Amino acid sequence: MTASPTACLLVIGNEVLSGRTRDANLQYLATRLGEIGIPLREARVIPDVPETIIATVNECRAKFTHVFTTGGIGPTHDDITSECVARAFGVPWEVHEETRAIMAADYARRSPPVELNAARLRMATLPRGAVPIRCTETTAPGFSMANVHVMAGVPRIMRSMFEALAPTLEGGAPILSRSVHADFVYEGQIADGLSAIQAEYPALDLGSYPYYRRRPDGGMGGGVALVAKGTDPTAVAAAAQAMYALLARFGEAAEGEPAPE
Amino acid sequence: MTASPTACLLVIGNEVLSGRTRDANLQYLATRLGEIGIPLREARVIPDVPETIIATVNECRAKFTHVFTTGGIGPTHDDITSECVARAFGVPWEVHEETRAIMAADYARRSPPVELNAARLRMATLPRGAVPIRCTETTAPGFSMANVHVMAGVPRIMRSMFEALAPTLEGGAPILSRSVHADFVYEGQIADGLSAIQAEYPALDLGSYPYYRRRPDGGMGGGVALVAKGTDPTAVAAAAQAMYALLARFGEAAEGEPAPE
Repeated sequence: MTASPTACLLVIGNEVLSGRTRDANLQYLATRLGEIGIPLREARVIPDVPETIIATVNECRAKFTHVFTTGGIGPTHDDITSECVARAFGVPWEVHEETRAIMAADYARRSPPVELNAARLRMATLPRGAVPIRCTETTAPGFSMANVHVMAGVPRIMRSMFEALAPTLEGGAPILSRSVHADFVYEGQIADGLSAIQAEYPALDLGSYPYYRRRPDGGMGGGVALVAKGTDPTAVAAAAQAMYALLARFGEAAEGEPAPE
Repeated sequence: MTASPTACLLVIGNEVLSGRTRDANLQYLATRLGEIGIPLREARVIPDVPETIIATVNECRAKFTHVFTTGGIGPTHDDITSECVARAFGVPWEVHEETRAIMAADYARRSPPVELNAARLRMATLPRGAVPIRCTETTAPGFSMANVHVMAGVPRIMRSMFEALAPTLEGGAPILSRSVHADFVYEGQIADGLSAIQAEYPALDLGSYPYYRRRPDGGMGGGVALVAKGTDPTAVAAAAQAMYALLARFGEAAEGEPAPE
């Protein structure tokens, strides 16, 4: 497990920290990275402050196999991610000619044509040595600079950029997951039994998640969902079976996650 | 502005990093802390790993006026936040007698009565010196340990704990916000004008956010929303007026945020 690649996500933007915008990228990336076998180990939401961005990029690129960033690569004054990544790597931030040409051709084709003005040219300006991430949603690219992958904050564009990048990422073993749950069973009842299962499968990540939801009869009710995650299919299946048996001691166990409210 | 209090949020839990659970607490806390005048400056999502929790708590409690944590205070083996906070502060983690008595009375009253077993007693075990945060949703408390405020991860309980805590927090000037937007206006057009407004109001945080949404006619369309945030009502209002005039040069400006999709 220790040799498997790891990922960190940096969500860059005052709008998430102010509550204006609810992040929609963390869950998508967490899920996809797990499938690819590059588990997300940390995420940070940081403001549009150059010193913070630079220090955080440098700290995290040393600590994790991959760093993914979202946000701050548009044309306005608060879009400073690209420039900050250049400063973090100590390289010039300069117009990327191929990207400028692609964007200019795209803008010229539009009706009416769009001017590649100074603000828009910022989106063709990359750290020297960066590899553009081109996607189907826009000609303004993301980019990879060594193990730092810079993507847009708009979820539709971020996903397109990530999926363009994904085939180039070398993953470890995919993270497998099995869930069981039971209504009217509570964490305080199964905690000891779950600890015993965790002790039996130390390489797995076993989680316990209480839930509360409106029932078909209109009342509120709760239960607990147990999740086993890991890379060994046999161990994950055996732990799931043991968790099912544990829940069945206290109530009506079921496979999978509880249905959403 | 530099003297105003600051906040950091630590979301503790493998389930957020695996994509199983979408965090629902960041936006709530960001919004409420802005209203109280303790702006959220950073958020981190970290795994259920003791060394990571301890190091992150210690780094962030030195860096920010307040640290809020969510998650990891239930009765199961993966609920290790409370114990880790004790270790971060270098104090014993011990049964809090008053809390034990409150929980025992609650459990005894239930029908059928619930046993205060070892797992549940963990929820009455706090770092020495912690002040419990009691809420209306459960008798298992959160707690404040100096400037670190430990809350549940379940959103309903987290909100109840935060609102119980809020009156004790000394805020700075509340963060005021004004928004304008315009359909069919794009960031590349207004970037220079917005930079000029930002230069005129350096104490404000001006943000530009493109949006895409389904229109009443069924087609997709975009536009841009501009947001001015700050503590000075006169400056915020003046900047909003200037941003409105900027958008009106290129399209049909409107006050407020665009209607959701």
